Amino acid sequence: MNFCSECGHAVALAIPEGDNRPRHVCTQCGTIHYQNPKMVIGSIPVWEEDGTPRVLLCRRAIEPRHGYWTLPAGFMENGETTSEAAVRETEEEAGANIEIGNLFSLLNVAHVHQVHMFYLARLLDLDFAPGEESLEVQLFAERDIPWDDLAFPTIRTTLELFFADRVKMREGVSRSYGVHSHDIRRPMIAPREPD
Amino acid sequence: MNFCSECGHAVALAIPEGDNRPRHVCTQCGTIHYQNPKMVIGSIPVWEEDGTPRVLLCRRAIEPRHGYWTLPAGFMENGETTSEAAVRETEEEAGANIEIGNLFSLLNVAHVHQVHMFYLARLLDLDFAPGEESLEVQLFAERDIPWDDLAFPTIRTTLELFFADRVKMREGVSRSYGVHSHDIRRPMIAPREPD
Repeated sequence: MNFCSECGHAVALAIPEGDNRPRHVCTQCGTIHYQNPKMVIGSIPVWEEDGTPRVLLCRRAIEPRHGYWTLPAGFMENGETTSEAAVRETEEEAGANIEIGNLFSLLNVAHVHQVHMFYLARLLDLDFAPGEESLEVQLFAERDIPWDDLAFPTIRTTLELFFADRVKMREGVSRSYGVHSHDIRRPMIAPREPD
Repeated sequence: MNFCSECGHAVALAIPEGDNRPRHVCTQCGTIHYQNPKMVIGSIPVWEEDGTPRVLLCRRAIEPRHGYWTLPAGFMENGETTSEAAVRETEEEAGANIEIGNLFSLLNVAHVHQVHMFYLARLLDLDFAPGEESLEVQLFAERDIPWDDLAFPTIRTTLELFFADRVKMREGVSRSYGVHSHDIRRPMIAPREPD
């Protein structure tokens, strides 16, 4: 950020009175420009037959991670709720009609200033089709999921948690899906020397 | 938003290619300036003695809602996780030391482009004190909470859900707190005529 979006003059980093961290402050009109994390919201669209769940994944037609597989998800927009965002992204990226369920995973990706959330969802029919941001859309049983070609760590974590919950439910350990919080830490650039 | 924060030239509303809603786009350098909802994160700091929980509330020293009572909460900052934000806000506004627990409530306030989240928290000691944004800080049992002087609907909803969960746990209906999602709808300006 170089210029004030209100008056067009230059901004400078300064700690405003009563604050404790540097902000972009306009040198002319004094407007403080806060920057805050963004939410990425998606769904886990499930089609279940004979007790075997299959999950709908999209292969990305856009950067970052063009060609890799993801759950339908995207940036939340002003004026909508988190579950409305999940329904919209599922429609836009996978052309899929879902009944939205409960929040399933909340994943902090602090180093890129993002919080990702995924909602449980039931596919209402098989009339899905790739949207503009997807190359293809496909249902996967757990064993067929392209684990090595997933787009983001939050997708892998959410899918792992989902199938782990299914095992617990099948074994009678729990009766329903949990709500899972998880922090994705930036991978170390160079591994530490062993002590 | 009137000017591009990158190059300082005027922005105009336009629907970018491949998008489906108007964005502020720079007329000079073409930068698209997305605007997204913000997260407000807080805690429910609980001090429990003889089986009776008391909750720590802060009376606001700032607008909006100066003089009204709130749970400690504020805008999430870049570079932190949601639970780190809850701990920081509790320290800043109430000078309180907490052990953070699970996510308790996720409240959509779509008409102001906000998502509020509150975490369960255990007060570690009674050494709390108002921070710069609070006039006073006080523990309240359920019957003493200033219900008519709460700052925001999300505070009331979270406190109501918290004490409702306590009842369920006391009566053996559930063994732990739930995770609650709730949408706060803008109050109607003028009530509709009855049909």
